[in-house]
Amino acid sequence: MTLSQGGQLLPSEEAATPLYVGHHDTQRDETSPSVLLAQAQEAGYDLVTLPVTNGGFQSHVLSVIEQYVTSLTRAPEAKGVPLPLLAPLAPDHTNLSPGEGTSSLVAFASPWIDVGSPDPLIAHISRQVLNLEVAYAAFCGISNIAIRGPLNHASISQYGRAVLELLGVSPYLQIHLLLPVSGELEQDISDEHTHLAELVRPQYVKGTEMDEDDPNEYNSWDVWNTIRSMCNYNSKLSIALELPRQLPPLSLQSRWFSEPVRMLSLPRTSFIRNGKGYPVLSNALQQYLSRFLRLRFAPLLLLSNVAHLSTAGDGAASQSRIMNPTPAEAATQPAGQEDRTLHLQYMRHLQQTQPLRSPIERFGQGYQDYMQSPLQPLTDNLESITYEVFEKDPIKYEWYERAIALALKDLDARFGNQRAVIVAVVGAGRGPLVTRVLQASQKTGVAVDCWAVEKNPNAYVLLQKRNRSDPLWNNQVNLAKSDMRSWSGPPGLAGRTNTVDILVSELLGSFGDNELSPECLDGVQHVLHPVHGISIPQSYSAHLTPIATPKLHADLLSRSSLDVTSDKWELPYVVMLHQYDYLAVSPETAEEQHGPDVQEAWSFAHPAPATLLVQAQKRAGGMIDAGGGVGGDGTNEHNSRSCQLRFKCDNRGFCHGLAGYFETVLYHSSSTGQKVELSTNPVTMAEKSKDMISWFPIFFPFRTPLYVPDGAELEVSMWRQTDDRKVWYEWMAEVHEEANGKRRGLGMSELHTSRKNGCLM
Amino acid sequence: MTLSQGGQLLPSEEAATPLYVGHHDTQRDETSPSVLLAQAQEAGYDLVTLPVTNGGFQSHVLSVIEQYVTSLTRAPEAKGVPLPLLAPLAPDHTNLSPGEGTSSLVAFASPWIDVGSPDPLIAHISRQVLNLEVAYAAFCGISNIAIRGPLNHASISQYGRAVLELLGVSPYLQIHLLLPVSGELEQDISDEHTHLAELVRPQYVKGTEMDEDDPNEYNSWDVWNTIRSMCNYNSKLSIALELPRQLPPLSLQSRWFSEPVRMLSLPRTSFIRNGKGYPVLSNALQQYLSRFLRLRFAPLLLLSNVAHLSTAGDGAASQSRIMNPTPAEAATQPAGQEDRTLHLQYMRHLQQTQPLRSPIERFGQGYQDYMQSPLQPLTDNLESITYEVFEKDPIKYEWYERAIALALKDLDARFGNQRAVIVAVVGAGRGPLVTRVLQASQKTGVAVDCWAVEKNPNAYVLLQKRNRSDPLWNNQVNLAKSDMRSWSGPPGLAGRTNTVDILVSELLGSFGDNELSPECLDGVQHVLHPVHGISIPQSYSAHLTPIATPKLHADLLSRSSLDVTSDKWELPYVVMLHQYDYLAVSPETAEEQHGPDVQEAWSFAHPAPATLLVQAQKRAGGMIDAGGGVGGDGTNEHNSRSCQLRFKCDNRGFCHGLAGYFETVLYHSSSTGQKVELSTNPVTMAEKSKDMISWFPIFFPFRTPLYVPDGAELEVSMWRQTDDRKVWYEWMAEVHEEANGKRRGLGMSELHTSRKNGCLM
Repeated sequence: MTLSQGGQLLPSEEAATPLYVGHHDTQRDETSPSVLLAQAQEAGYDLVTLPVTNGGFQSHVLSVIEQYVTSLTRAPEAKGVPLPLLAPLAPDHTNLSPGEGTSSLVAFASPWIDVGSPDPLIAHISRQVLNLEVAYAAFCGISNIAIRGPLNHASISQYGRAVLELLGVSPYLQIHLLLPVSGELEQDISDEHTHLAELVRPQYVKGTEMDEDDPNEYNSWDVWNTIRSMCNYNSKLSIALELPRQLPPLSLQSRWFSEPVRMLSLPRTSFIRNGKGYPVLSNALQQYLSRFLRLRFAPLLLLSNVAHLSTAGDGAASQSRIMNPTPAEAATQPAGQEDRTLHLQYMRHLQQTQPLRSPIERFGQGYQDYMQSPLQPLTDNLESITYEVFEKDPIKYEWYERAIALALKDLDARFGNQRAVIVAVVGAGRGPLVTRVLQASQKTGVAVDCWAVEKNPNAYVLLQKRNRSDPLWNNQVNLAKSDMRSWSGPPGLAGRTNTVDILVSELLGSFGDNELSPECLDGVQHVLHPVHGISIPQSYSAHLTPIATPKLHADLLSRSSLDVTSDKWELPYVVMLHQYDYLAVSPETAEEQHGPDVQEAWSFAHPAPATLLVQAQKRAGGMIDAGGGVGGDGTNEHNSRSCQLRFKCDNRGFCHGLAGYFETVLYHSSSTGQKVELSTNPVTMAEKSKDMISWFPIFFPFRTPLYVPDGAELEVSMWRQTDDRKVWYEWMAEVHEEANGKRRGLGMSELHTSRKNGCLM
Repeated sequence: MTLSQGGQLLPSEEAATPLYVGHHDTQRDETSPSVLLAQAQEAGYDLVTLPVTNGGFQSHVLSVIEQYVTSLTRAPEAKGVPLPLLAPLAPDHTNLSPGEGTSSLVAFASPWIDVGSPDPLIAHISRQVLNLEVAYAAFCGISNIAIRGPLNHASISQYGRAVLELLGVSPYLQIHLLLPVSGELEQDISDEHTHLAELVRPQYVKGTEMDEDDPNEYNSWDVWNTIRSMCNYNSKLSIALELPRQLPPLSLQSRWFSEPVRMLSLPRTSFIRNGKGYPVLSNALQQYLSRFLRLRFAPLLLLSNVAHLSTAGDGAASQSRIMNPTPAEAATQPAGQEDRTLHLQYMRHLQQTQPLRSPIERFGQGYQDYMQSPLQPLTDNLESITYEVFEKDPIKYEWYERAIALALKDLDARFGNQRAVIVAVVGAGRGPLVTRVLQASQKTGVAVDCWAVEKNPNAYVLLQKRNRSDPLWNNQVNLAKSDMRSWSGPPGLAGRTNTVDILVSELLGSFGDNELSPECLDGVQHVLHPVHGISIPQSYSAHLTPIATPKLHADLLSRSSLDVTSDKWELPYVVMLHQYDYLAVSPETAEEQHGPDVQEAWSFAHPAPATLLVQAQKRAGGMIDAGGGVGGDGTNEHNSRSCQLRFKCDNRGFCHGLAGYFETVLYHSSSTGQKVELSTNPVTMAEKSKDMISWFPIFFPFRTPLYVPDGAELEVSMWRQTDDRKVWYEWMAEVHEEANGKRRGLGMSELHTSRKNGCLM
């Protein structure tokens, strides 16, 4: 097991679910790191925690403060006495030294300081303690340090500013803010660490309560949100999240899941005892933990105060090796001596019994939250490996075959079994849909005259090879090397061209129309029979929902822009969304499911009405029609779309962008009523095309995260824009709120446009 | 009179208050532009308005719609009929042609369209009309076109998107959105223009009411705010603001004043009749107009529907040349025939009787809203012209002399008239303060031993010349060429140095300490007498208030960043704020004054406590004190500051940044209680140092404007940060709101820092 320098875990190749478990003891003090490491490793832990400074240092700090306060009392001109300064750490103030084991050590800053204190003396001393400890830990080669979240909610900005300073200390040090899921840290039950304010100026303690804010489950998240915003989503700042026995609602669980949690702390009190008296986690906690363990880089896990590591000094005390057991624990403790590593053994058991991953999780391994630019298959020629990835899908081509079979039967009935059905696969690639057409023909017994049209000269080589070598193809597939828009159709009798009965295409992108399926299918429609011609897909729609995704926002922030004219915020990304949270939960899904409110933006149907294409063609020439009323450019205007959607957001949060999906009806048989659909929409995917892996969602980012208060409404405006050469998207959002029957604005994003990164037609 | 291509007026040099008055007639239709221009010029107008298209075009558009609706009724498959297209303008659809007079023409787009209509047909046709008209006007060389603000508040985003498209039409066309101050446009009283929706689909008319939003005085501003945000503060988009007879509260007047109003429309109904029956403006309107006329580029003024221009066809109708007089107007109309140009004559009268400008307005002419980087006098050597500008101030040096005189008298009394007072002017520049010291000495009769210390070798040449030539100086001033921080002080007896009794300096910047006065004065304090030594100034404080300033925001948006490492949003600017609005109004100032809530950020006092400087010096060496507790760097930490200020904002708006000011106590005589102060704080300036011109305010920008709803609170956190080499500022703001006794967050800015642009020590 190793930790990378950035503090991220390198997943080991053999273990399905890597899990690094550390031992944390808030009373640890005088032990040397090497002894500690040996003990931890012997007990089976991967990591062990260590405070940077010891009790001697705390006493020293207190004496400095005491001297200062005394000098104030003595000196009449109190204002002239400067605030006290701390000297660098003395050798006996810390047990830490640089050494080989530092990668298995997680350092802890002193929990008794209060950096955001309203008392200038306490804040000044606390900042110095924190700076000394973090700098020394970094010097010693520690790569992970945990610091306690702010005690005082009124001065988050002072606390946040101090954290920002720490981030500059070392490029290799990951700083973990120890935060509760909500409310207060459970660790405070171990009251051995009195806070500086209580030690020095009891009169201030009262003022440090959260007396100002709405006591709300999201308060701890609010604190995090403010601090990380001040630190501009710095990747060196993450969360050590303390998991309580009783988890908050799913919505808040999801919120934390979307944040950079790099450490999970499980205090002893978060365990329950099973029937046999062994410590276990509740089902809810197990599930939440599993969710984190499926992350590409799972958080470190700290077992806090579960048992002392040391075996030294055991004897009389050995009867009770778990620390300060509650009466319930004492009562349910297994007879005789409890094994000190029961909690750890249980975690290892959980690790080995993690649920299997779904096909898309397995397929997407490594792609989680990795942003790619959408394909431009119309202007670029794809490589074979890209086709190969597409062809792996276990669902998509099966569904295409079902749709083709339905259409063949419908047309065969219409033709009275009199002739073969002419099917053209346009954009055939390496031919997977051609195979499906031939299989559907075999299975239904409907004869086909099959065409494959492909513009990519490289893929066309493969199509020809396959026509010769594939026994199913058997040289019966008619191949045409052409952009589908300029294909003249299958040759018929006497030099005339036949029309096609079924056009089969797979041109859909993550947002449905974003790879120009509408434009391509309009362009090939001239070969389709004007009355009974069928397009597979028949229709498709784009869907979206607002999301919080700090991970993607941070990723974009850290990227340099594509080039001088392009802007990384002004284009959508294809991404397997993983560590994110839905801001709008569907009123139709039950609260405990936390299902998103995904709404339809717009849709397209094929074939397009003939009158529409006639008008479009006239516009391409820029001529005025004799009948008046037609002229100018705008030949593709009929494929422009816009929508205005309103999303109710129950819980406050920052909206970092819009997640986009699509649904498509491949074929809907009007005779049988059967319908074959594909969907990446998380609401309908399981029902319509479970386990389909071909498409990841699309993500439309906002440059500036948009704050949405509890219960406010996010109004999303989106456009599919087009001129005669390009297609692009524009998106923006406004925040509104109903209060006392009045609707009022609370903010808006800028208007984003991908015009400069648009898809060329 | 000419209009520049950007649509801005070039101020004529002779006229104190340039005012360009145009004639607008909403019923104008069939006149040719050249006739119109001749008539307008004859009547004394500078400008005249013209609709781009005429009634013939409107009829044509209606017939296109009619045809479409008919075809829909006939065609069974209604979905297949594409929305109708408009052909380019026909010759008889417009009276406009390219020509020489276009710079004096203001074009008007058709007011009967509804670009944001929820009806797709009306929206589609309206967009085409607007695009045709704007493109044709641009083609003809028109540089100003007015378009009516949106009819429909529910679809502002569609309207805004259409406007954004127009901004791309021509680089020379200024687009003015015609908007009311609040509520509805007065022009609608002339009901000759029925809206498209009413003409075509009466069922939609009801839906276009503002039925959703809170009916509020700020609604019209909201509309503007949304549209210009969508258009990203594009400088080609501005406002044609219609001024009603009854103005809204000062707060809303100020808000509009802060926006890019490039045209003011005064409808006939906004005039009142004076005792003699002549049309005049109310006092409130006159004052508001004056405010606009003091802008660097005053808006164009349109008199709307006040009288027909044409004299043709007069005769029977000539009895009533003002248009459709109300009964009151008819009754008060002067006997006989009213002069058609009474309104214009009145405007010319107003123009000639504009109030005089204040000294700072005259001095700052040309500097209004012009952002400069703050001076770095410590690292750069100033040029003579910069000193000259500083020395022009009518107040500052007078006040310095008063302060010096008071201090001289106090010290003289302390010394019992026994010896000359040693005064050192540190950073003497070209010597203005030296002169004041000598004058104060003459006037008080207190003898001085005067020193002038200057590091700038160029200014030092002038000091030496002046010592020889100026009769007051008379070679009695002791000159020292030195950075004040390394000056060893006046030589005393037996090779020892004397201490200085009074240190006089003028090191304050727009934010008080931003030009490193604290660091400089700390650095020279070693020459000051430790017991009775006086620093002039004795203390100073920084003050700030949040402001809305779309003009500066737009200016920054349009700038390229300073260089790769610097960021234009990460530094403060010195700027003579003019077109801006205070977001927080002081609870202490009366509502009708709309006075800002300016709060103190922090302060400095000199001389600093000796113990502080001792500690600071020890830290510079990074050594540990034998007594423990002192060490490390941070020699200037005692000059770091921070504040957290809360500003209540009554009226919603975007906060674009913080305006900063300073106040200073030059000298406060403890014996007489007399106090000499300077202030640029708008709340106290008039009382403390009226007409002082030396300092413009400072402006700390926010990259992303922060929305503040009605009644919300802006919490500003600010820091003066320092390391051992630099001083810089950091600033951020959070929005909070009290509702139902709970305080909740509504948004926050990023944390801005000028670290990379900090002042070198």
